[in-house]
Amino acid sequence: MTTENGESPRLDDRHVDDSFHVFDTTLRDGAQREGINLTVADKLTIARHLDDFGVGFIEGGWPGANPRDTEFFARARQEIAFKNAQLVAFGATRRAGGNAAEDPQVKALLDSGAPVICLVAKSHDRHVELALRTTLDENLEMVRDTVAYLTSQGRRVFVDMEHFFDGYKASPDYAKAVVRAAHEAGADVVILCDTNGGMLPAQIQAVVSTVIADTGARLGIHAQDDTGCAVANTLAAVDAGATHVQCTANGYGERVGNANLFPVVAALELKYGKKVLPEGALAEMTRISHAIAEVVNLTPSTHQPYVGVSAFAHKAGLHASAIKVDPDLYQHIDPELVGNTMRMLVSDMAGRASIELKGKELGVDLGDDRALVARVVERVKERELQGYTYEAADASFELLLREEAEGRARRYFRTESWRAIVEDRPDGTHANEATVKLWAKGERIVATAEGNGPVNALDLAMRVALERIYPQLAKFELVDYKVRILEGRHGTESTTRVLITTSDGNGEWATVGVGENVIAASWQALEDAFTYGLLRAGIEPAE
Amino acid sequence: MTTENGESPRLDDRHVDDSFHVFDTTLRDGAQREGINLTVADKLTIARHLDDFGVGFIEGGWPGANPRDTEFFARARQEIAFKNAQLVAFGATRRAGGNAAEDPQVKALLDSGAPVICLVAKSHDRHVELALRTTLDENLEMVRDTVAYLTSQGRRVFVDMEHFFDGYKASPDYAKAVVRAAHEAGADVVILCDTNGGMLPAQIQAVVSTVIADTGARLGIHAQDDTGCAVANTLAAVDAGATHVQCTANGYGERVGNANLFPVVAALELKYGKKVLPEGALAEMTRISHAIAEVVNLTPSTHQPYVGVSAFAHKAGLHASAIKVDPDLYQHIDPELVGNTMRMLVSDMAGRASIELKGKELGVDLGDDRALVARVVERVKERELQGYTYEAADASFELLLREEAEGRARRYFRTESWRAIVEDRPDGTHANEATVKLWAKGERIVATAEGNGPVNALDLAMRVALERIYPQLAKFELVDYKVRILEGRHGTESTTRVLITTSDGNGEWATVGVGENVIAASWQALEDAFTYGLLRAGIEPAE
Repeated sequence: MTTENGESPRLDDRHVDDSFHVFDTTLRDGAQREGINLTVADKLTIARHLDDFGVGFIEGGWPGANPRDTEFFARARQEIAFKNAQLVAFGATRRAGGNAAEDPQVKALLDSGAPVICLVAKSHDRHVELALRTTLDENLEMVRDTVAYLTSQGRRVFVDMEHFFDGYKASPDYAKAVVRAAHEAGADVVILCDTNGGMLPAQIQAVVSTVIADTGARLGIHAQDDTGCAVANTLAAVDAGATHVQCTANGYGERVGNANLFPVVAALELKYGKKVLPEGALAEMTRISHAIAEVVNLTPSTHQPYVGVSAFAHKAGLHASAIKVDPDLYQHIDPELVGNTMRMLVSDMAGRASIELKGKELGVDLGDDRALVARVVERVKERELQGYTYEAADASFELLLREEAEGRARRYFRTESWRAIVEDRPDGTHANEATVKLWAKGERIVATAEGNGPVNALDLAMRVALERIYPQLAKFELVDYKVRILEGRHGTESTTRVLITTSDGNGEWATVGVGENVIAASWQALEDAFTYGLLRAGIEPAE
Repeated sequence: MTTENGESPRLDDRHVDDSFHVFDTTLRDGAQREGINLTVADKLTIARHLDDFGVGFIEGGWPGANPRDTEFFARARQEIAFKNAQLVAFGATRRAGGNAAEDPQVKALLDSGAPVICLVAKSHDRHVELALRTTLDENLEMVRDTVAYLTSQGRRVFVDMEHFFDGYKASPDYAKAVVRAAHEAGADVVILCDTNGGMLPAQIQAVVSTVIADTGARLGIHAQDDTGCAVANTLAAVDAGATHVQCTANGYGERVGNANLFPVVAALELKYGKKVLPEGALAEMTRISHAIAEVVNLTPSTHQPYVGVSAFAHKAGLHASAIKVDPDLYQHIDPELVGNTMRMLVSDMAGRASIELKGKELGVDLGDDRALVARVVERVKERELQGYTYEAADASFELLLREEAEGRARRYFRTESWRAIVEDRPDGTHANEATVKLWAKGERIVATAEGNGPVNALDLAMRVALERIYPQLAKFELVDYKVRILEGRHGTESTTRVLITTSDGNGEWATVGVGENVIAASWQALEDAFTYGLLRAGIEPAE
């Protein structure tokens, strides 16, 4: 470690293996993703998560370029006691024709107090001429001057070579000259960037190998995902000798996104056997991925490698019996290594083995009671024939399972009847009104509500009716609602299936309803959603 | 081509370059994705899209394993005039200890009438013993016997080597013995499958090279995306000599998913310079990706490589002037090559070119009238902002286009108001009643009907009101109905989008409605469905 920065000394206290860098740029490049708009508080929260995860470097933004980033660096130094990461300030080389020591943008980088500075430099000759509008020689001088000045001020300097691979294709000698300029001026790592994201792994590997051989610089890789190969491109660079990977949480980034931190780190740890995280951190990966998604207000991708809810979900009933014998036959890693879990989807091939596994997963032991398992299998089959699906409705399945295991349904209320009216008026406005008649704790309750639609009106009417008896309902929120019309079976009319996801602020659960129409199916799914939510809250059933 | 199958001769008429195969398994392996549940009608629609896109092979399912797949093959042969693709039936090798000629599952494959059969065989010794519960020798015999029998029946045979890469790691000699058994018995292509998805590109490349050298078989690759490297793994196999790639549209598939058809094909066409699609097909890629997402009722991924709405979205400002000078400096390909567009703003989905093309496709020539195209683009943008989608609602789009081109909407009736009531009665039965008040040919009509649901009741009430004036309505049938709840935009409540498919016995058309609730959105889609059906029937508008 070359850092001798007195301004944030505690950043240097930790012991880190400097031979390989996991460098996160979620807060800088990741924030370029369409739809992400981070506040300073968001950035601080994400920085804490990334530090917990154990990345070595957190690029926090471009101090001086906007007040939010300047504030982030000031507050991060005050408010976060980093355990693993060093803060990195991002910025550009000095202006053409200027002097690094007098450049206000370079001064802002020093003022940020970050012990590490990551500079961006142009390495594609056409970009130097068309975008930077200066000479090729002056660009080299800008790199040398800025790197030398910042290292003289006690900062560790990394340099991002923007558009490196396209530049290398057009003018390999110039691209390498920029790498040499940065390396010789004192940059610790020179990062080759596939800024437009058009590369494939074989190309990356060939170029990185050649540049290491020709320049002797320590190299890093920064890959965008425009070909869908960013993770593989990052690993190809590591195969060729790069020892610094730049990634973003969940692959957030401009256009398609950046190399996704989580599968890159998981591959390094689990496939390469390279220790790049502190002990125990990998098992936090799923939680941290989802937590960061929540902060940036994007639904976590259910199908993200390693950390997605579906990443270890098995559908084929075909394999369930073999999975029981040896789960490793059907998964490439033990999901617990990354903090995820194997899930058996209860699909229309429901067999005994998958029901047993599912029961275990839900904490309902069915193992020894073969008659009980048989009853559950029978009911699932029968209901799937009617159009139910339990693969995406764990909560409804658990209610069914408990009903069979406990001999009776958990009920907090009983429906006598309900009614929903939707009216399109001549002035183009709509009225949506619902009335429910329910029984709870021996009491008959009639309630009416208006909503923005008939299901919303029923949901609200149910709350009006029950909230006095079960105040926990107030926290429930319907967060997703899906409808599917199923083909007619056995000559009957088509049926409607509704899937509802409900949240209580701490977690979500999904329920299913099936009926001859969308409102009736929705009502069923709502009944299950309220029942399961009360069960989850630990309330005693009292119909 | 070895196929000499008399049962579906027209599949063999086309001319295709057999030296490289793009094999799609969306309908079989893609359907394993959590949350996807395809009807036969869905499968037929997706098969048409894939054929339009120009894949060489469409794996339609496992005939005999479930009645839905059996029906799909029967109907696909009747209803689809394939332009590019051959249908493939998937199935297993015969039972242990049996005889392929007498195996009912093998018979179902022949009965499907598919000219190509893709068999799955175990190539991992532990799976043979633990999952198949037979000897290693009998497994080889099952492969030989089944391949030889099916080729003797005039079918072209491909064989998927399940768990090949894990098997190769454990017992390379046995894994290669299974490849040889398939190859020597007459399989045209032997596909190495990374079934658990744990491989990285360098490993794939090494194994594929060795297996080609050691067995002489023509190899294919089937990669799952559990490491986030499925696209790169597929390309690594091609680099090593594989000439057959198995993919799924949008990467749908079990767990994380399969190798995504679109970036694989785009890399082959645009990065390798390999012609794997018919002329002009690549430019349809974005449209087809989105259309398939609508059919499976999943939101198209905004950040999917090449085809995502964000794939060529640039934050305006920083690079804007340089992009104007030379857009190639900031994008790895011209987005129009894949039917996508560069975007400088958040909402700019509808490009002029795509509107013009669409108009041409619908027989409305917009080519010379730039003001008209601009108006249509403007209206589409505005409506997409409200939640409409025209990718899967051609009929609604054509109505919009005609309205702009002809200066007024085609109207056969005008809605004054409507009302729907759904009542759940204490005896568990439901009453669904709708009343509509319409004007048609100067006459005010009030009609009421009961249905099996509120939308059905509205549909029937509309028929009761209008059938006397437009007897053609009697033939219309609502054949599919999909609902999606869209996230709240700009702080408003969430909105509901309904897609309805209607048939008149000769063809189908799709319409869209958007509203604050499911019934209001359905009514809009119904209005468009009736209007378009009457237009299609050649009836003169007469509001």
